[in-house]
Amino acid sequence: MSGKTLVEKILSDHIDGGEARAGQIVEARVDFAFGNDITAPIAIKIFKEAGIKRVFDPYRIALIPDHFTPNKDIQSAMQVKILRDFAREQGLPYYFEVGRVGVEHALLPEEGLVLPGEVIIGADSHTCTYGALGAFATGVGSTDLAAAMITGKVWFRVPETMKFVFRGKLRPWVGGKDLILFTIGKIGVDGARYRAMEFTGEVISELSMADRFSLCNMAIEAGAKVGIIPPDEKTEEYIAPRAQRPYRFYQSDGDAVYEAVYEWDVSDLEPVVAFPHLPENVRPVTEANGVAIDQVVIGSCTNGRIEDLRIAAQILKGRKVHAGVRCLIFPATPSVYRQALEEGLLKIFAEAEAVIGPPTCGPCLGGHMGILAKGERALATTNRNFVGRMGHPESEVYLCNPAVAAASAVLGRIAHPGEVIDR
Amino acid sequence: MSGKTLVEKILSDHIDGGEARAGQIVEARVDFAFGNDITAPIAIKIFKEAGIKRVFDPYRIALIPDHFTPNKDIQSAMQVKILRDFAREQGLPYYFEVGRVGVEHALLPEEGLVLPGEVIIGADSHTCTYGALGAFATGVGSTDLAAAMITGKVWFRVPETMKFVFRGKLRPWVGGKDLILFTIGKIGVDGARYRAMEFTGEVISELSMADRFSLCNMAIEAGAKVGIIPPDEKTEEYIAPRAQRPYRFYQSDGDAVYEAVYEWDVSDLEPVVAFPHLPENVRPVTEANGVAIDQVVIGSCTNGRIEDLRIAAQILKGRKVHAGVRCLIFPATPSVYRQALEEGLLKIFAEAEAVIGPPTCGPCLGGHMGILAKGERALATTNRNFVGRMGHPESEVYLCNPAVAAASAVLGRIAHPGEVIDR
Repeated sequence: MSGKTLVEKILSDHIDGGEARAGQIVEARVDFAFGNDITAPIAIKIFKEAGIKRVFDPYRIALIPDHFTPNKDIQSAMQVKILRDFAREQGLPYYFEVGRVGVEHALLPEEGLVLPGEVIIGADSHTCTYGALGAFATGVGSTDLAAAMITGKVWFRVPETMKFVFRGKLRPWVGGKDLILFTIGKIGVDGARYRAMEFTGEVISELSMADRFSLCNMAIEAGAKVGIIPPDEKTEEYIAPRAQRPYRFYQSDGDAVYEAVYEWDVSDLEPVVAFPHLPENVRPVTEANGVAIDQVVIGSCTNGRIEDLRIAAQILKGRKVHAGVRCLIFPATPSVYRQALEEGLLKIFAEAEAVIGPPTCGPCLGGHMGILAKGERALATTNRNFVGRMGHPESEVYLCNPAVAAASAVLGRIAHPGEVIDR
Repeated sequence: MSGKTLVEKILSDHIDGGEARAGQIVEARVDFAFGNDITAPIAIKIFKEAGIKRVFDPYRIALIPDHFTPNKDIQSAMQVKILRDFAREQGLPYYFEVGRVGVEHALLPEEGLVLPGEVIIGADSHTCTYGALGAFATGVGSTDLAAAMITGKVWFRVPETMKFVFRGKLRPWVGGKDLILFTIGKIGVDGARYRAMEFTGEVISELSMADRFSLCNMAIEAGAKVGIIPPDEKTEEYIAPRAQRPYRFYQSDGDAVYEAVYEWDVSDLEPVVAFPHLPENVRPVTEANGVAIDQVVIGSCTNGRIEDLRIAAQILKGRKVHAGVRCLIFPATPSVYRQALEEGLLKIFAEAEAVIGPPTCGPCLGGHMGILAKGERALATTNRNFVGRMGHPESEVYLCNPAVAAASAVLGRIAHPGEVIDR
């Protein structure tokens, strides 16, 4: 019998007996499950209607009110209250209150609550982010979350794996965000439908954890079940001081069966921009030159980490946001916020006349704090540019990395960072 | 004929011929007029329907999108767009974009756009704030704002003046907010209906400009047309480096006619709290002891200035916000934000696990960024505690000064600052 992929190995170790092979339906033990202020209230309702008294394990559940907090309106306040009340009833240690809460997919790795080799489900599509740690992490619906809160298990069809090998050396201002946008541009938004995307090659080995999170975060935008990076010494360095449980590194076997293998030399890749209204509409930033913008958003589970803010600050330092642009910056977690304050990044942003928001998903999903009017155009480090994603159905969202976002905020149009600063 | 009050003198100098005396209807020249993202769109609509081409003077109009910004939703984004487009069409220099915008009543004095001796109208009830500068400043409806944008004039009934003389010396932790709550507690929320409230006495002379702004800001909560403080050397010190136009100090004549004179020794006044659901339900903070709170809000046009943040920081330094409390802090303007950053106040707040929002009215009016769920209780440095003011109709708002707010955030219940820190 052939070897196994990383994903098959993780799932095999999470089922009772037998092996998990691509195509099989398995019921897997869940190491960690969570929901947010949009999805958890539904799961809690189902949990209660089932007449269940206690969650399977309070230490393996998180409730994270990050989408519409600080509470946007009465409705969102009531949603958050459901989470808060349930956390108190069940004695859940990982309910994160406003002031302690961050964007879930930045917060959970930072807190060491999602770990290499684990099976993680979240009632949020970007749960695939933790594939950067070598975990099998995937978004589920609120019903699946409810079932997992009760049983500690979830069923999956074991996905086939597509392997992406990135060769060469990245240029300045090119990062994980560009790699994933480039990939989605190549294979399309359904190019990896229900597949595991395994990212390898020397470019991935060189990539920082922040860039790896950005990369895996958007696997869902190619339709993937999970995005995953084989864990290495960088993974270890990141997770060792944080981990709140034991963890394990898995690697694909040399003779594992892949559904497809893509190998690209990305040495010539320029920063890219995804044009409206799909993440697959990818072009080099130079081809977007001159597109005027009304708003820039730097943040989200895709690019709101300290490394992202450092890049933005490098460009905004001593400069002003263009008079015609609102530049909104959302540090993804309280810890990122404090670190950015400590390093002087918030000072740079404030002096540039950008707005610094609290940790929240905010405008990424058209939630609040930066919604677009009719005809407005935003450039964002976020993950989706669907019709009306950030506001009015006749607004537009362009996606990019933090360097492009910051440079464009200064120039008032989509721009290559090299237009603002040499590097 | 008897002498004139400060208000009668200002209005007399703003009408064509004759004297403005209490009870008369006058048409006064407007020195400055403004609206926000809620009120200006209606004024602009009326302006356009009237077929008018140009505003009377672009340098005497401001458009300030501060209530629902960064844009809460599509509707608010469209409202702000009306302001932005109108400002471009009319070449208005004082349109403040997100990133440059602050809470109007903190922003305009800071920018030197509202001045002693002027007649100022704003389509917002707390326009009376600028009485702290010795201006006749009052809130009007959007229709009056439209008329003023066209003609540069507005009609008033000249108000009778009530004089409030504060004697003695304030205790620690007692400030302008306590003086006005105390006053409203004494005379009631309609106690000064359509009157000018003139605040004098040695306590007022000693009061900082920040405290004077807080005091005059809430004159409307006693029903007053304006609150006003005779300008002095503190006024001069504040306004001289900021003023963008010439200005003039007026004083009431010794034989001016007052409708009523109140004289209070406030040496024994303790910090006070206004209980739900009216600002007149005022009690000493010690009588509120033990009232548990879910949220604390520090900010707004009443108490979001740098002096307010310094007081809050003094108490929060080295402490943590209580686990059951969300503590939201909104520096009122970008300049206050940058100053707070510079002085290390934001660091103190972030380390205390408070949330620092961008300059916005935010939750004060139940707008966004901190709306209450059913049954929740907030303690706030804001100005109104009406039913549902900050969210759900079954939520509660208690009003207080920044010291009480910060101390209560730490203890999780309404508390005297002295419980947390000696001074």
